[in-house]
Amino acid sequence: MSILTVGTVALDSIETTHGAVDAVLGGSATYIALAAKFFCEDVRLVAVVGNDFPDAYMHTLQTNAIDLDGLQIDKEGKTFAWGGRYHKDMIGRDTLFTDLNVLETFSPVIPDQYRDSRLVCLGNLEPGIQRSVLEQIDQPQFVVCDTMNFWIDHTLDSLRETLRYIHCLTINDEEARQLANESNLLKAAQKVLDMGPKVLVVKKGEHGAMLISKESMFLIPAFPLDDIQDPTGAGDTFMGGFVGYLSKFSTITDSALRQAVVYASTIASFSVERFGPDRLLTLTEAEIEARVSDFRQIIHVPVHSEISSFVES
Amino acid sequence: MSILTVGTVALDSIETTHGAVDAVLGGSATYIALAAKFFCEDVRLVAVVGNDFPDAYMHTLQTNAIDLDGLQIDKEGKTFAWGGRYHKDMIGRDTLFTDLNVLETFSPVIPDQYRDSRLVCLGNLEPGIQRSVLEQIDQPQFVVCDTMNFWIDHTLDSLRETLRYIHCLTINDEEARQLANESNLLKAAQKVLDMGPKVLVVKKGEHGAMLISKESMFLIPAFPLDDIQDPTGAGDTFMGGFVGYLSKFSTITDSALRQAVVYASTIASFSVERFGPDRLLTLTEAEIEARVSDFRQIIHVPVHSEISSFVES
Repeated sequence: MSILTVGTVALDSIETTHGAVDAVLGGSATYIALAAKFFCEDVRLVAVVGNDFPDAYMHTLQTNAIDLDGLQIDKEGKTFAWGGRYHKDMIGRDTLFTDLNVLETFSPVIPDQYRDSRLVCLGNLEPGIQRSVLEQIDQPQFVVCDTMNFWIDHTLDSLRETLRYIHCLTINDEEARQLANESNLLKAAQKVLDMGPKVLVVKKGEHGAMLISKESMFLIPAFPLDDIQDPTGAGDTFMGGFVGYLSKFSTITDSALRQAVVYASTIASFSVERFGPDRLLTLTEAEIEARVSDFRQIIHVPVHSEISSFVES
Repeated sequence: MSILTVGTVALDSIETTHGAVDAVLGGSATYIALAAKFFCEDVRLVAVVGNDFPDAYMHTLQTNAIDLDGLQIDKEGKTFAWGGRYHKDMIGRDTLFTDLNVLETFSPVIPDQYRDSRLVCLGNLEPGIQRSVLEQIDQPQFVVCDTMNFWIDHTLDSLRETLRYIHCLTINDEEARQLANESNLLKAAQKVLDMGPKVLVVKKGEHGAMLISKESMFLIPAFPLDDIQDPTGAGDTFMGGFVGYLSKFSTITDSALRQAVVYASTIASFSVERFGPDRLLTLTEAEIEARVSDFRQIIHVPVHSEISSFVES
């Protein structure tokens, strides 16, 4: 099944307590596509880069068999660049610079051969641009959309409009509270569901994730890590793993969604172990399956029949 | 199987955004015993109260069939009293007053008929006092101990000594980090296990709990609530539910511990729905079982065989 991902391809400069890297491959579409590739052979990318985008990074995307027919190269400008410094807790961060560059005039053009995409990932972009993507696609089975606090603050009406056309919204817990104007996360999630999406995935970082619909709720902790090098792209990697795993299913059921969250959490847990997308580039399917197996054991709740020593007191 | 709980019986004055109560029944031993009672018929309480302890509260403990032979009444002083005001997030709180009163000279005397207690709950008390309890007991099967940041700050050596004699420590995530002097929770937990306890339960409030030993790890989110009235006693209720459920088992296995954490989390989720211990006083076993069933569904990860629509892409 095909996955279309629309978002950013960026040059990221990142500082954490573990080190610093300069102008490495980044952006939401990059992480989404690299994660989705583990589960789906037909991953299509629509984004824009500038005249400074390194051949080496183009080669990285190509060797990972990502379909780049939709990657626009804007010869007139430079690639979107972002710089950030993470706090010691690896949660808070300061943005050092945001050079939109070619992103400023980016208008996604979906190639004709992408119109039949079954699964669509709308990475974090201005909500109106996200809608323009949907207008260029025939009839996607499942549209997953990301957003951020900036759009909630500045383009709320447009975001609310976009929410009417998607199936699933992925946001973090603070964004959910902000979007719903409600401090209780459960109430906030229910209010967001009333805005349109059938499914909401709330990413809570080190505290795991919540999958919620009108009919069902699923809570999962994060895979425990004793060493985090760089959280950049974890949320996008989660989204890519989520949609990637869903591509294995003909119909999207509650069980499929839950499994997808397990795989999404797992692949995100790998991503943060190295700077930028480095860990995703060396990761193997066997490593993913091994960690999913460990993860299942960590969150396993035994049923009564498993408990041999149960006695009535 | 018998449970001995040693801790405080207090008069709590609590303010939250939902209201305020004055001098209501509280204290670690109270919450532990009231929670454990749902699973165990033989719950023994050792604590001290003063000459002002209301008959009505004594009656409450008695009608809940808690064995009060170990409850000392110090006619010379007043009952330990605590006052606190919770922040809007229901996590942070300001202590308004702490009147130790009869607690200042409390030295637990374990009645002879309690010496055979199989399960022991050491509620939050000075670590040396916790050890004095263990010296008065024959050979408990499982000793669970709570502590707090105050003892980590002021009596660390004594606390480290106590940790050598217990089976399980229950603390919150910040205390675990503080005790281990390590910001990563997984590393911190491993360092605490090196201090003596075979099992560590890290309570993470709204983010759930972690059960960890040298051999196994179990992570569980918190049961999601859309209305929290008063978090007072949630940790002690968790501990009481945990030990209470363990009392149903002849041997304490990893499966039993995991199940106990599910029940502990569930009963704690009820406790915070009303002020003080009120919810525990009206709670029924049927309500507990119904919520455990809901909780199991919320954290259920389907296995492949449950997914009918799985197709290889």
